[in-house]
Amino acid sequence: MTMKAAVCLLSGGLDSATTLFYTIKENFRVLALTVDYGQIHRRELESAKKITNYLKIEHEIISIELPWKGSALLDETIPIPQNRDTTEISKEIPVTYVPARNTIFLSLAASYAEVRGASAIFIGANAIDYSGYPDCRPEYFKQMETAICLGTKAGVEGARISIETPLIHLTKAEIIKLATQLGVPLEWTWSCYRGDRFPCENCDACFLRKKGFAEAGIDDPLFSSVKE
Amino acid sequence: MTMKAAVCLLSGGLDSATTLFYTIKENFRVLALTVDYGQIHRRELESAKKITNYLKIEHEIISIELPWKGSALLDETIPIPQNRDTTEISKEIPVTYVPARNTIFLSLAASYAEVRGASAIFIGANAIDYSGYPDCRPEYFKQMETAICLGTKAGVEGARISIETPLIHLTKAEIIKLATQLGVPLEWTWSCYRGDRFPCENCDACFLRKKGFAEAGIDDPLFSSVKE
Repeated sequence: MTMKAAVCLLSGGLDSATTLFYTIKENFRVLALTVDYGQIHRRELESAKKITNYLKIEHEIISIELPWKGSALLDETIPIPQNRDTTEISKEIPVTYVPARNTIFLSLAASYAEVRGASAIFIGANAIDYSGYPDCRPEYFKQMETAICLGTKAGVEGARISIETPLIHLTKAEIIKLATQLGVPLEWTWSCYRGDRFPCENCDACFLRKKGFAEAGIDDPLFSSVKE
Repeated sequence: MTMKAAVCLLSGGLDSATTLFYTIKENFRVLALTVDYGQIHRRELESAKKITNYLKIEHEIISIELPWKGSALLDETIPIPQNRDTTEISKEIPVTYVPARNTIFLSLAASYAEVRGASAIFIGANAIDYSGYPDCRPEYFKQMETAICLGTKAGVEGARISIETPLIHLTKAEIIKLATQLGVPLEWTWSCYRGDRFPCENCDACFLRKKGFAEAGIDDPLFSSVKE
C-alpha cells in the first residue's frame, strides 16, 4: 500500500517540529513546507532546515516579502511586548500578530498538497498556551478547510484536503511531553521572537516556552545547546 | 468623509482591469495588488503596471515562486490546450488551472487589506465565460470571506473584510461593454496564456476574449496596439 502524503507546515519552532514528528508517526509521507515571510527571527528557518536534514525528508522553503508588514515580527520599529504574564498575554491580540499569516501559509500548503496528491495539511497551531491570534482557533481552521475544498480541483473532484491541528487543545506542557515521547530534538527548535544568538527570555514566545517546560518538569535543552 | 479603501487584485488581464476601474467608480481608494507567481505569460505584469501608472494609484507587486508548479501556466512542458470551443472548455477543469491560485491571492489581499484598514477585496473572477476553475465560483468566495473574517484581527474586532466579485455573473461580452463604459484602456490588457509578442489566438483565454468582443460588437484594440 502506498503511504498517504501530507504537507506539514514547519516554522522551526517547538509546536511545528512536534507536529512534524507526529505526522510521521501517523504514517504519512511528509512534505515539509516552510515560509520565509521576512520574519525578524529568521533564525527559526535554520532550525527548520536542521530538523528536515536530520529526518531526511522533502522540504520546500518559499520566500514571500510582504511589503506592508504590519507586525512586530516584520517591522523592527514596533517593539516586541516583554515580561507579560498569562493574564496579560490573553487580554488582546498583540502586535506580534502577522495579518492573515496562517491563511497565507494554508493557501500555499493547499496548492502544494493538491499538486502532490496529499490528503492533509498539518499545522502546529495551538489555542491554549498561545497569544490569542485569531488564525489559531478551531473555527477558523474549519472554515478554511471548507474554502480549500471548494476552491481546488482536488476538492471538487472529491479528494478533500483536510487541515489537521493535532496540538490545538494541548497545553504547552503537554506539547513538550509529546515532543519528548516522539523524539523531537527540542534543542534545535527556536521560539524566541527576537532572532538573536540566545533566546531573550522575556517575549511572549519565550514566556510560554519557559512556562511549558517548567510545568512539564523538563529542562529546556535549547539553553545548554546555545550557551556552550 | 474619508474614502473607504479596497484592495483590488490586478493580473493585467481584461477582467481584473475592468474590476479595478469599477472599484474606482464605486468611490474606493484603491490599493492594487499583483502577484508574480512565475506565470509564463509574465507579460501581463507589464500590462498591470501600465494601467496603475496611468491611473496613478498605489500598486504592490508580490513575487512568489511556487516550486511545485502543477499547471500549464507555470510549467512549459505541459502543453496549453488550443482551438477548443465553448463546449470543450466547459467539459472539465483544464491543465491551465493553477492549484489554489485564488486562495493564495485572496490570503495576500486579506493581509494587505487588514494592514491598510481596507474594508473590501475586489477580484475580477467570472463564472460564466471561464475555464471552469473551482476558485472562480460564488460559493468558494463566500466560504473564503468567512474564513478571512474568522482568521484576522480585523474580522474578530468586527471590521469584516468583504470579497467583492462584481463580474461574477457577467458574460465576457457584458464585461467588455462595461469596460468600454468605464474607460478601461483595453489595448493594454493582456489575456493570452502564452507570453509571446502577439496573442496566440487559439488558447482558451484568447478564445473567450475573441468571442466576447465579437458578441459585444466591438473591435479588440489589443490587435491594433501590438500589430503596429
